[in-house]
Amino acid sequence: MSSNQLDKKAQAWSALFSEPMSELVKRYTASVDFDKRLWQADIEGSLAHAAMLQAQGIIGEQDLADIRRGMAQIRAEIEAGTFEWKLDLEDVHLNIEARLTQLVGDAGKRLHTGRSRNDQVATDVRLWLRGEIDQLQPLLAAMQRALVSVAEKNVDTILPGFTHMQVAQPVSFAHHMLAYVEMFARDAERLADLRKRVNRLPLGSAALAGTSYPLDREMVAQLLGFEAVTQNSLDAVSDRDFAIEFTAFAAIAMMHVSRLAEEIVLWMSQNFAFIDLADRYCTGSSIMPQKRNPDVAELARGKTGRVYGHLTALLTLMKGQPLTYNKDNQEDKEPLFDAVDTLRDTLRIMAEMVEGILVKPEAMESAARRGYATATDLADYLVKKGLPFRDAHEVVAHAVKVGLQRGVDLSELPLEVLQQFHAAIGEDVYEVLTLRGSLQARQVLGGTAPVQVRAQIEWHKQRLA
Amino acid sequence: MSSNQLDKKAQAWSALFSEPMSELVKRYTASVDFDKRLWQADIEGSLAHAAMLQAQGIIGEQDLADIRRGMAQIRAEIEAGTFEWKLDLEDVHLNIEARLTQLVGDAGKRLHTGRSRNDQVATDVRLWLRGEIDQLQPLLAAMQRALVSVAEKNVDTILPGFTHMQVAQPVSFAHHMLAYVEMFARDAERLADLRKRVNRLPLGSAALAGTSYPLDREMVAQLLGFEAVTQNSLDAVSDRDFAIEFTAFAAIAMMHVSRLAEEIVLWMSQNFAFIDLADRYCTGSSIMPQKRNPDVAELARGKTGRVYGHLTALLTLMKGQPLTYNKDNQEDKEPLFDAVDTLRDTLRIMAEMVEGILVKPEAMESAARRGYATATDLADYLVKKGLPFRDAHEVVAHAVKVGLQRGVDLSELPLEVLQQFHAAIGEDVYEVLTLRGSLQARQVLGGTAPVQVRAQIEWHKQRLA
Amino acid sequence: MSSNQLDKKAQAWSALFSEPMSELVKRYTASVDFDKRLWQADIEGSLAHAAMLQAQGIIGEQDLADIRRGMAQIRAEIEAGTFEWKLDLEDVHLNIEARLTQLVGDAGKRLHTGRSRNDQVATDVRLWLRGEIDQLQPLLAAMQRALVSVAEKNVDTILPGFTHMQVAQPVSFAHHMLAYVEMFARDAERLADLRKRVNRLPLGSAALAGTSYPLDREMVAQLLGFEAVTQNSLDAVSDRDFAIEFTAFAAIAMMHVSRLAEEIVLWMSQNFAFIDLADRYCTGSSIMPQKRNPDVAELARGKTGRVYGHLTALLTLMKGQPLTYNKDNQEDKEPLFDAVDTLRDTLRIMAEMVEGILVKPEAMESAARRGYATATDLADYLVKKGLPFRDAHEVVAHAVKVGLQRGVDLSELPLEVLQQFHAAIGEDVYEVLTLRGSLQARQVLGGTAPVQVRAQIEWHKQRLA
Amino acid sequence: MSSNQLDKKAQAWSALFSEPMSELVKRYTASVDFDKRLWQADIEGSLAHAAMLQAQGIIGEQDLADIRRGMAQIRAEIEAGTFEWKLDLEDVHLNIEARLTQLVGDAGKRLHTGRSRNDQVATDVRLWLRGEIDQLQPLLAAMQRALVSVAEKNVDTILPGFTHMQVAQPVSFAHHMLAYVEMFARDAERLADLRKRVNRLPLGSAALAGTSYPLDREMVAQLLGFEAVTQNSLDAVSDRDFAIEFTAFAAIAMMHVSRLAEEIVLWMSQNFAFIDLADRYCTGSSIMPQKRNPDVAELARGKTGRVYGHLTALLTLMKGQPLTYNKDNQEDKEPLFDAVDTLRDTLRIMAEMVEGILVKPEAMESAARRGYATATDLADYLVKKGLPFRDAHEVVAHAVKVGLQRGVDLSELPLEVLQQFHAAIGEDVYEVLTLRGSLQARQVLGGTAPVQVRAQIEWHKQRLA
Repeated sequence: MSSNQLDKKAQAWSALFSEPMSELVKRYTASVDFDKRLWQADIEGSLAHAAMLQAQGIIGEQDLADIRRGMAQIRAEIEAGTFEWKLDLEDVHLNIEARLTQLVGDAGKRLHTGRSRNDQVATDVRLWLRGEIDQLQPLLAAMQRALVSVAEKNVDTILPGFTHMQVAQPVSFAHHMLAYVEMFARDAERLADLRKRVNRLPLGSAALAGTSYPLDREMVAQLLGFEAVTQNSLDAVSDRDFAIEFTAFAAIAMMHVSRLAEEIVLWMSQNFAFIDLADRYCTGSSIMPQKRNPDVAELARGKTGRVYGHLTALLTLMKGQPLTYNKDNQEDKEPLFDAVDTLRDTLRIMAEMVEGILVKPEAMESAARRGYATATDLADYLVKKGLPFRDAHEVVAHAVKVGLQRGVDLSELPLEVLQQFHAAIGEDVYEVLTLRGSLQARQVLGGTAPVQVRAQIEWHKQRLA
Repeated sequence: MSSNQLDKKAQAWSALFSEPMSELVKRYTASVDFDKRLWQADIEGSLAHAAMLQAQGIIGEQDLADIRRGMAQIRAEIEAGTFEWKLDLEDVHLNIEARLTQLVGDAGKRLHTGRSRNDQVATDVRLWLRGEIDQLQPLLAAMQRALVSVAEKNVDTILPGFTHMQVAQPVSFAHHMLAYVEMFARDAERLADLRKRVNRLPLGSAALAGTSYPLDREMVAQLLGFEAVTQNSLDAVSDRDFAIEFTAFAAIAMMHVSRLAEEIVLWMSQNFAFIDLADRYCTGSSIMPQKRNPDVAELARGKTGRVYGHLTALLTLMKGQPLTYNKDNQEDKEPLFDAVDTLRDTLRIMAEMVEGILVKPEAMESAARRGYATATDLADYLVKKGLPFRDAHEVVAHAVKVGLQRGVDLSELPLEVLQQFHAAIGEDVYEVLTLRGSLQARQVLGGTAPVQVRAQIEWHKQRLA
Repeated sequence: MSSNQLDKKAQAWSALFSEPMSELVKRYTASVDFDKRLWQADIEGSLAHAAMLQAQGIIGEQDLADIRRGMAQIRAEIEAGTFEWKLDLEDVHLNIEARLTQLVGDAGKRLHTGRSRNDQVATDVRLWLRGEIDQLQPLLAAMQRALVSVAEKNVDTILPGFTHMQVAQPVSFAHHMLAYVEMFARDAERLADLRKRVNRLPLGSAALAGTSYPLDREMVAQLLGFEAVTQNSLDAVSDRDFAIEFTAFAAIAMMHVSRLAEEIVLWMSQNFAFIDLADRYCTGSSIMPQKRNPDVAELARGKTGRVYGHLTALLTLMKGQPLTYNKDNQEDKEPLFDAVDTLRDTLRIMAEMVEGILVKPEAMESAARRGYATATDLADYLVKKGLPFRDAHEVVAHAVKVGLQRGVDLSELPLEVLQQFHAAIGEDVYEVLTLRGSLQARQVLGGTAPVQVRAQIEWHKQRLA
Repeated sequence: MSSNQLDKKAQAWSALFSEPMSELVKRYTASVDFDKRLWQADIEGSLAHAAMLQAQGIIGEQDLADIRRGMAQIRAEIEAGTFEWKLDLEDVHLNIEARLTQLVGDAGKRLHTGRSRNDQVATDVRLWLRGEIDQLQPLLAAMQRALVSVAEKNVDTILPGFTHMQVAQPVSFAHHMLAYVEMFARDAERLADLRKRVNRLPLGSAALAGTSYPLDREMVAQLLGFEAVTQNSLDAVSDRDFAIEFTAFAAIAMMHVSRLAEEIVLWMSQNFAFIDLADRYCTGSSIMPQKRNPDVAELARGKTGRVYGHLTALLTLMKGQPLTYNKDNQEDKEPLFDAVDTLRDTLRIMAEMVEGILVKPEAMESAARRGYATATDLADYLVKKGLPFRDAHEVVAHAVKVGLQRGVDLSELPLEVLQQFHAAIGEDVYEVLTLRGSLQARQVLGGTAPVQVRAQIEWHKQRLA
């Protein structure tokens, strides 16, 4: 009985089984190709479990020492690329356990005491995801800092603010950049909120019902840095909320990226020409020699679909699943892994690229001169002269109509013409009708007036420092 | 100029427009059929805005009094069902404003000062959603209480715990109910987290850039109970994160419902017959006279797709949208409204039905006797006798194989047979092999031992009281 | 036993039930609010079923006459709006059957012979959907005709063709319109393909297993215009493929709409100003008096998400459903209904609006002059002089670089400068570098040369006549 | 000018570019890691293009010979695993073209004449997908044959047919298997329909506008086996309908798999025990020695979400994309590839496993005896005695109620008791109340009577031979 049962797994799953898995089944069900990236979490989790087993007297000191020694070697082998991952051993967990037993014998066979792959994999994924979250937070901050740094240089750059892609009112380009800062700041909030729910320890739930060994789950939680211990073993082995919630967060963050990407693509287009990108962020065409394409922004926009798809996949996966663990759940990993990878790579490159944006203020300002961007200012001017807003709105509509007929901006209509629309209009109206006048007027909290924008920049800089 | 421009909207949008909207366009773009449910939030928001305009000296005291009087009448008309909703006036906002101006004249025309429909609708939806959240939290608590109350009566009811729908280990039916309590408790956490992000005031952002009136946004926030004021006007009018985040929460909650529903449907099936439902929760068949179908659980499971669909819809909606407000966003309402309605109705009926479940303990326990549910206990027994777990696992596999060949449970194998598998097996093994022995052994935190389950029930009762 | 059992349904489902459905359950499970739109299909199906029952001698001639008389009255009542739809009677089917029995007594009770709601609802939905498909096909054709009619007037209108939103090569605006014709033509193909699978008769499958009455299903199929009869009763009552396949078609069609809508929105934007829309297709702003927004196109784009969501909903609904009918399937209707409505309304309004597009050829052509749109023509010119394409591509890249430095188009570089890039360049190069020269050169099948485009227009006109 | 420009691509995209792509950009935008699987289609497409160029006199005979020679070597290198894929060369297309030029010089540089990567990649993906479709059709047929072969052995095996997971009526297990045959047959129909739309040649559309070379697109189509040539170049380079339509087909097919998988999992569960699976299709548990889990069916069910997700991803990708090619579209490949792989692997293993199902007829039949499965037969019996169906339904409801109270089946109630419910009931009723009597009675076309089922089996066997 001292043989390593896992070494014979290619022959049969266990003594209960009369034949090996079909080759097709083996390939179809094995997960080691993609779950081996959990190896660090798996080893870390096993070491904490072993330390606790020893502290509770369930395994001996020598066992623990053997396990530590074996794991150190496995770690070295994996890092060196010499570890042999076997499909027959299905997943990262059995691969590592089998190797451990090869290396240290019975101690290896004792490691799985009071543990099942069901709680082990849930623990590993949570540990891994927590680590990724802790790398994503700085990337979200870097993204925000990149936007703030562009904003800082462009408080007085006037951009036509659009609604319905029609020129609406002049805004500060900095203000526009800060809108995205708000989005990514909310993403960071959401990520912090969900981290709490990721950072709970399922280990000790065993297969589904808990275990008869006197495990000290709090000790394991402490060793691994978990904030809490899951309270129901059935739930703990079948819960994938944390993966879904993370992917929903990632989907929203990618949606934000897609909006920014859309604008970068438009702004780069010759009809806008509001910005340029350095050559290192562009690619050419195999046929058209003049092309410099903003591929990165387009691809980032396209990758949004990918993360949305992962969210659909995970929600579908869990729909209607009876308790507790079902093999379906093996499918939680690839969508989650790819959502993490996609978001991380996208944030990294978008932050770098945003900081490299070349702003063309004249093009922006000239575009803001089209489209009667200060019409609302004229209405507000009339309100200050006593008109109810709805009447003022109607007066200005008449004025715009005449402007359109003459092909001129409101500010180019002579005073006597303006006064035909309303007698209260005086010489001071022309100040109100300038882009800069309009900008500076919007001093309300959150508005686009430079003084407001500068205050926001200061606040964000402090916050992100 | 004292006429009510909105009264002429059927003729043309404003003086700028030379013809009325096409009938088709009017019907296609109007939202009043579904957004009129926001009327209370719209009036509440307008009253706070008016109070602030007056406090800031932007409108007069008489204006405010008129607006209040007009709004009181509008409220009465809507509640009485006599308010005439007009398609020509597009949405709830213009319908109410037009009626107000009919009722109180110029004061009505002054209400929209420093405000746009863009920030108005964002404010209304947030106010409305906050109200719905505050009704959903008690429903999530009621759902949990219903589950706890079933649990309380069934701590000692033995259910076969399943993994892969194969009998795994005996568990307490109460423990199983509490697994769902954990799920809905996480939903409640998520809902509380996202409420913070819903409860921020966009009003004052105007069309997109803020406004030139000296609005006191903090005052409006305080009047309406918002925790914070949005900090960037461009973001504030185009942000729909809160709708998506809510719908993602709702999708996860419905997924939890779908799992419970699946189990109720299975347990009601004659092959399980673990539970029964009172007639008032069942429906019959138009053709098969013997049928009593668990329609509610099935329908709840089916409605999961609906909410997943709304999440897909909202994410798609926002993908790649350039700033700021685009008409696409009118499509945010129906999915959000229906997600709220579906979740609310489903939680309400599931809580009522769960509490009416008739548990059939004998059927559950008898099912737990199939499938060698205590095989792990035998392995653990051997570990305690000194075997490494992996070897013990293999010994028991041999024993199960013989049990299967003989068609008996492990506990029905004579001692001498068991001892053939391992000499360390003694008479005390039979205690370990009983369902109750197995159950009581799992005393680890979060495990299924009655003592653990009772502690959990106490904790939940306190928490939910 | 001559009483109408359905009249007592509010008391209890049948004699088997000891209490009425809970009010909450009744409201939660009733579908009559939305499935009453199937009333015509329901009556049509019942009449065909009754005619067949009589032909087979299962019911008498008087029964059939009574049923026809009763259905005629019901039809009249529904059309007059006097039919009383009752929630207690759950759905359109029981409402109509109950009323029929009130009107004609025992004959009404005989109608359901050999039939179940399971096969009845499947039949009704298929009949209804077939009718909708037959209305959508002309709308898809009208959409194509509208695009062709714009194309016809704009064969020689030059648009900058974009890849990556960067000016790529000049194209005919007609050619661009025809690209959308291709898309909607593929939609029409898909719709025709799937109609075959919708148009199969499930009636006769009864609850799930078929029936013991000697039904003549082929006769019913013929009466109702079904092409075929479903071949397996279990599949027939639980199959919802046709709803999913239709919704997938609708999702793709809406995606096409969203692309066209995106371009209309961009082209209307002041930075493009490639087109204008008549006032009747635009709406204004509650605050900005100058606004004329292309709301229809934006809303159509937004509604894409809605239909995508319905597809997600239906796929989720059916995932993992065991055979045969489960109540979940009641949730098939609302997504399907709304997908049909959304697509129909959107096609109708988009076709009308497209035909009303005001093209601004100068703006388009002037935009095509930016971005070195004829650079590929220069490369092709060099190939014709003997260079390998890759080398020619590289030569032109050098030329574009110099053009950019000088701020001029390739056609504005003097011959001696061009010759520095390659000696083979001669005076004839300038013809190649014009927009029109470039356009006319692309005479390959499917290319943008006017002669090709005109041929395409002719072909489409014939096809769509 | 004879140098290989692609060899210098690591330095700069072309002469137009002043710096190399950033390393991050290179990794983010390169697709060669996943699109290299298109290599065969890429070479095949290039050879057809080259043959046509030569036939049209655009390149020389020697060029063609060189290209063929080079491609033969490249093919050999790839097959031998010695081909060096370079990230700097972005994708499969540039990698192969660059190597070709290394091998054969100028001829390699001429290959891209009249072609762009935009039409090249569209051609490659269509060619590849057509090949995969042609491998999926036999797999769909094999799946059906496996189901038919199980059916053939089980025409007289009685299964309780379920609606709402409640016992409804007895059905033949063969009939149940054939329900799935219908589903996969519809999938095969859909796949055949969509193949037409995949099998159209975009090559010749060049970058977007067609080309000035006198290409013979029909010749290329013929060489590559395309049924038709795309008719609009702008559409041809940006169309991804075929990928979406395929993925929608795959999603529906996986949905069918998920239903079958769900039933296999349930039937394997001890509470059903309707079937068993050979050991080679099962896996064990790391902790519970008695476990034999139907992992394959569970995993197949879980993989449904994956394919649904890919559909969401592709639809999202294309939403609102302006014409023509945008880099977003690079994201079409991974979802499509994985949808193909997942469906292929799943069909293959499910077909193998289905054929290995061990049917347990006694368990099925005994389950059918629960739940009053012949109640409808009693109602039909009464109809044949003259009762209207609705009244008969109500009579039987009373009888079932008494049966439930006594804990016996209808067939176990004495005749005098049955006659209390209706005087027309005679001794012959007991024949009607047997499972086999019920089964044989359902002789309607598509019904479960063995004679019907055998006819279906014959038909399917012929069809699939």
